Amino acid sequence: MRIDLAQTVMRRVDALAELTEEPGRLVRTFCSPAMRHANELVGSWMREAGMIVREDAIGNLIGHYSGVPSQGGTVNEKIFLLGSHLDTVRDAGKFDGPLGVLVAIACVQHLHENKTRLPFAIEVAGFADEEGVRYHTTYLGSKVLAGTFDPENLKLRDAGGTTMAQAIRNFGGNPDRIVASRIEPSQLLGYAEVHIEQGPILEQKNLAVGVVTSIAGQTRAKVTFTGVAGHAGTVPMNLRRDALCAAAEFVLAVETLGQSRGGLVATVGELTALPGASNVIPGQTILSVDLRHPEDGARRSACKELETQAATIGRQRNVSIDWHIVHETGAVICDRSLSVLLSEAVKVRQPKLALLTSGAGHDAAAIAAITPAAMLFVRCKGGISHHPNESVSVEDVRVAIEVMNDFIAARARLQ
Amino acid sequence: MRIDLAQTVMRRVDALAELTEEPGRLVRTFCSPAMRHANELVGSWMREAGMIVREDAIGNLIGHYSGVPSQGGTVNEKIFLLGSHLDTVRDAGKFDGPLGVLVAIACVQHLHENKTRLPFAIEVAGFADEEGVRYHTTYLGSKVLAGTFDPENLKLRDAGGTTMAQAIRNFGGNPDRIVASRIEPSQLLGYAEVHIEQGPILEQKNLAVGVVTSIAGQTRAKVTFTGVAGHAGTVPMNLRRDALCAAAEFVLAVETLGQSRGGLVATVGELTALPGASNVIPGQTILSVDLRHPEDGARRSACKELETQAATIGRQRNVSIDWHIVHETGAVICDRSLSVLLSEAVKVRQPKLALLTSGAGHDAAAIAAITPAAMLFVRCKGGISHHPNESVSVEDVRVAIEVMNDFIAARARLQ
Repeated sequence: MRIDLAQTVMRRVDALAELTEEPGRLVRTFCSPAMRHANELVGSWMREAGMIVREDAIGNLIGHYSGVPSQGGTVNEKIFLLGSHLDTVRDAGKFDGPLGVLVAIACVQHLHENKTRLPFAIEVAGFADEEGVRYHTTYLGSKVLAGTFDPENLKLRDAGGTTMAQAIRNFGGNPDRIVASRIEPSQLLGYAEVHIEQGPILEQKNLAVGVVTSIAGQTRAKVTFTGVAGHAGTVPMNLRRDALCAAAEFVLAVETLGQSRGGLVATVGELTALPGASNVIPGQTILSVDLRHPEDGARRSACKELETQAATIGRQRNVSIDWHIVHETGAVICDRSLSVLLSEAVKVRQPKLALLTSGAGHDAAAIAAITPAAMLFVRCKGGISHHPNESVSVEDVRVAIEVMNDFIAARARLQ
Repeated sequence: MRIDLAQTVMRRVDALAELTEEPGRLVRTFCSPAMRHANELVGSWMREAGMIVREDAIGNLIGHYSGVPSQGGTVNEKIFLLGSHLDTVRDAGKFDGPLGVLVAIACVQHLHENKTRLPFAIEVAGFADEEGVRYHTTYLGSKVLAGTFDPENLKLRDAGGTTMAQAIRNFGGNPDRIVASRIEPSQLLGYAEVHIEQGPILEQKNLAVGVVTSIAGQTRAKVTFTGVAGHAGTVPMNLRRDALCAAAEFVLAVETLGQSRGGLVATVGELTALPGASNVIPGQTILSVDLRHPEDGARRSACKELETQAATIGRQRNVSIDWHIVHETGAVICDRSLSVLLSEAVKVRQPKLALLTSGAGHDAAAIAAITPAAMLFVRCKGGISHHPNESVSVEDVRVAIEVMNDFIAARARLQ
């Protein structure tokens, strides 16, 4: 590299972190003014890397780096897609999303500086919404490219009452053109995404990067325990139907199940005890269960088992149970051939290969519906993510850029 | 009884339940307009029962029924005090508090109708605040009579910013005269209070009333579990420091301890898991512990044991524990001689005597500081209290009135 692209990426991550809706903390949601500024700034970096920049109907920013001109011109030019998202959660870290976009731009910049053209075009996507903060959605941006965007979403309203359609118009997009914004799958050769791990495995293994083999499926359930409220001083222990005690037993059952099955993570993240007064026995407790596993069958059977355990606890304690599945997404297996290419590139740059499952969802899960997808995880400090303390080292970013450069070159040799 | 005083009490309970701050549910807090109306209405019933009515400096309503005129006039007349409170919790039942005041008035009415004078005066107190809803206090009204009111309370502000001193002035009371409003203990012969049980024991034993032997002491603690928040999808189970799982283990330890010790009740009524998102491992959980036992030593040792258990859970899970005692009151033993008199009266009216511990606090606990105190509990349906479904039968009210009439007559014979 003529200039240190890793340092460039770090500086750009910092610059993007300044583009926020709330002074003092990083919040950049779908179609916000902060996102407008982010698209402008990232677009300028794309141009600097030799790309032609466009924005699609929902506000995804896309840079195009043409390949070797073929005899037929660029009409049937194949595309290899790179990317990640530019939106953030509230009070976010600065790497989740932007790192993948900026590493992709660095790779194109590397090609551009070396005046290299590939036998296909590279496109870099900065997706407009992956976190779903504003409309409580998933993969808004990448689903548009994949052609799986549900137009019903356009009617959703944010906390301020603005419909998604209106927000897109205000941003300069066009809700009527969203369906037409999909990428023709036959034009795509594949997709690769760089993302921070958001977990502690690479740090534990003392490795800069790892290859993702699958993105776990997820079940989210809402479980309501209904017993009988009562005075904490006057109802004897043996006559109680305490909804919180039943829920506590279940929380531990969720943890135990999670610990007993390889690959499973099981979490109770929300819990509300009602009426919620220190001198009242809780009559109702409502909690969330989040189950993830790289294999759908294993996740479903774990879910079934927990439902049975909740019922047993309810029967033993004379507490009624309402079990409600809120949300369910299947696991996504990363493309084997692309992942092998990526793994070969990793093995050149670090002593060991780590194969990881992603417990978090990523744009790659949406794009995998139309083209082979691969993912590279980058070590993050303490596994901390969705938090201002999110941290990635410049050395690891350098490894990621080198691995992706090699990967792209290897993919080009196959063409 | 010439007229059915039990029916009268039931009608009066209903009439008082109409005097509320919020249409549609019963809320009658300290020094509210609803309390002004309650004092006026209850005062009229006191007068109807032959009493002279006054209001003290904090707004306690007090009816005085003189005894047999002695040679020295009424200057050194001894007083036997009856009463309970006229304030309510939010969305209250209609019996908690008013029942005791109205049964006491019925007893005086019984004396008045029979033209009976006792060798002492009877006073009936309708205490202005026992529930402490407006200023988060305990026994405001009865502490004034007992001379244990802390004048620092006058500076407290309610949710709307009104100081207690101002609220008392607005009500027509006089905060400067509160200390002088205490009853001279040497003038008092004793205190007896009728109250709904607020628990299920009498219903279980199929008895109308029971005699309270003691009012349990109480410890309220706030326990904070601090682990590490993390992404529910990316942090493996074995690397978690989940504050909610630690808290769940502790909730069950509280329940188990409560079940293992006679007389102990142990409750976690409040629990907050933070940050409280379905896809985030809770980094912090804060909960309340309410411990009550009729013996202070047993309560303190239970508290110590739970603190140790919390520490053990914290150590095992690498979660830090903050243990904070919010509030502590000692147990109050009811006066043995008065309770024997009351028990004799009970045994005449029902087949069996039930001796109960009160897990809830009552005005009797404050008054016991200056004079012998006894309490009679009345069966309540399903043990439900602090709820609109609070229910007491007219038959049980009749038994309570008869028992109290006999008790007062027996006490008079001792003079």
